[in-house]
Amino acid sequence: MHKLWDSYPEIKKELEVVIDLMDENAYCKDKVIESSIKDMIHSNGKMIRPGFSIIAAKFGEYEEERTRVLAAVMEFFHMATLVHDDVIDDAKLRRGKETVQSKYGKDYAVYIGDYLFCICFKLLASTASLQSIQIDSKAMSRICLGEVEQLNSRFDKNVSVKNYLKRVSGKTAELFSLSLYIGAAESNCDKKLSRLFWNIGHNIGMAFQIIDDILDYVSDTNTLGKDSANDLKDGLYTLPLIYVLEKQPKELLTILDKEIYEDEDIAAIFKLTHELGGIESARNLAKKYTDKAYKLIGQLPDNEYKSMLKEMSRVLLERAY
Amino acid sequence: MHKLWDSYPEIKKELEVVIDLMDENAYCKDKVIESSIKDMIHSNGKMIRPGFSIIAAKFGEYEEERTRVLAAVMEFFHMATLVHDDVIDDAKLRRGKETVQSKYGKDYAVYIGDYLFCICFKLLASTASLQSIQIDSKAMSRICLGEVEQLNSRFDKNVSVKNYLKRVSGKTAELFSLSLYIGAAESNCDKKLSRLFWNIGHNIGMAFQIIDDILDYVSDTNTLGKDSANDLKDGLYTLPLIYVLEKQPKELLTILDKEIYEDEDIAAIFKLTHELGGIESARNLAKKYTDKAYKLIGQLPDNEYKSMLKEMSRVLLERAY
Repeated sequence: MHKLWDSYPEIKKELEVVIDLMDENAYCKDKVIESSIKDMIHSNGKMIRPGFSIIAAKFGEYEEERTRVLAAVMEFFHMATLVHDDVIDDAKLRRGKETVQSKYGKDYAVYIGDYLFCICFKLLASTASLQSIQIDSKAMSRICLGEVEQLNSRFDKNVSVKNYLKRVSGKTAELFSLSLYIGAAESNCDKKLSRLFWNIGHNIGMAFQIIDDILDYVSDTNTLGKDSANDLKDGLYTLPLIYVLEKQPKELLTILDKEIYEDEDIAAIFKLTHELGGIESARNLAKKYTDKAYKLIGQLPDNEYKSMLKEMSRVLLERAY
Repeated sequence: MHKLWDSYPEIKKELEVVIDLMDENAYCKDKVIESSIKDMIHSNGKMIRPGFSIIAAKFGEYEEERTRVLAAVMEFFHMATLVHDDVIDDAKLRRGKETVQSKYGKDYAVYIGDYLFCICFKLLASTASLQSIQIDSKAMSRICLGEVEQLNSRFDKNVSVKNYLKRVSGKTAELFSLSLYIGAAESNCDKKLSRLFWNIGHNIGMAFQIIDDILDYVSDTNTLGKDSANDLKDGLYTLPLIYVLEKQPKELLTILDKEIYEDEDIAAIFKLTHELGGIESARNLAKKYTDKAYKLIGQLPDNEYKSMLKEMSRVLLERAY
């Protein structure tokens, strides 16, 4: 289990059961699919989304079986999007391990992603209410659209902060919202409380993705477990760079105009993004989203899980992994 | 609307409404996605699966709204699998038109397929019972596995008829079964009748795919609307060839051993498959499945839709498109 949960033994223990449950549901006649899914399950992911579902469920009538299944669905869904993203990105590394598509080829990866979606719906249909399935499928559409928006914005040197935030809202924050929401709603929290969780998820998710994108500019492959320069090579401009691009610095534009970014180009882009304040501006915005999340968490009923959620959002803001 | 439905004006009319409904649900903020989905909707597909859902629903308490939505789901789901298949196959043509992946690239095609899955689940969750959603998601897993089995069997000169039938059962027959089943079950047909429809679907679906694969060996691109040699070039050996391969004819094996199949190789493979009786054997098996379907249809309560289903299975067996 990821070190993130070391301070919360109760949630950590639940997440360990969720992982067992995921293992069971990874069963597949095709053993390549099964083992590639199991590899992903045991790749030391942060398990934030399932963890959030569990925490939110603690605010209602906590039913452990139901909550675990829903938590597993959130992580399976996250995995499905990762696998299909990696098909697009041609990513070689994910969580420090070789990606499915790099190991088994694009063809397999498309179907493994599809198979993971199927697992999600099988589990959802066996556990959740029709209403939650509806909300879930709508959220999934929006996540999918976030990915498409990201695709569309590639190599666009005029991409705006607004456009970036819109796609992050879809591709990342939506699943954070859903994870907290579904944990609450399926534990019979009332509508108002469930919606509050949705909004908290949005703000934590926005901050999370911004930090993720900042880390690409400040970490090396070993710390992050993925090839940081990869997104940039694929023309994926994220917040730190977008902030700098708003100033249209000539030196940077010249490099970005190149057909292919060589390693020295990447290094130069990283350096300029630092020097021109892109990292700092991005960090400020992540801080703002976290502050907003803090405020909203303040409206939750007082209990130990409320403090936990507050602490988690700070830890996620300050993380280097 | 495809000519297949010309003799059944009642179903044809319903299918036209289903197409309108699909158009409405193809709405997407991303206009490339929307228009590519609409292109597919209006590409003159046979609409067999939604047609079957409607026919089966006529055996129960026919609710038009509900039936149309479920019929649309079956076609959307079929489209999703087509799009992802074409990513794998690198297919350039589908229904005589350029495929999504050839037009917009693989990246887009992965997400368009995902988006179509999302539409399916949104619609299902808004209309079907939890039990049907469960059955549906299980069927989807099996369809996905059928695709993977097909992937695994590529360029395998020892692929058996049994293996072929297994993958066809997954990738094609399952959705035929589901379409008839869900039409019946969601119109309050009893369990026995719904299950009968499932089995009818299986047999029609098996025959359908076998005929599809035969047509690749006997049609030209214009009649079929897809590049017939494409599957073969990708190492996808289907029933006519598999029957011939059982006899291990040296001349054929030599050609199949080649790294790349040139046009003259394809022509030679086609010729040998004809001469060595592969087409005939495959056609016999398709006939057997259709006979089995006939028998099962015979157990349905007598009405005009029963005759329709019988006629349809004969027409599908004898089709050249």
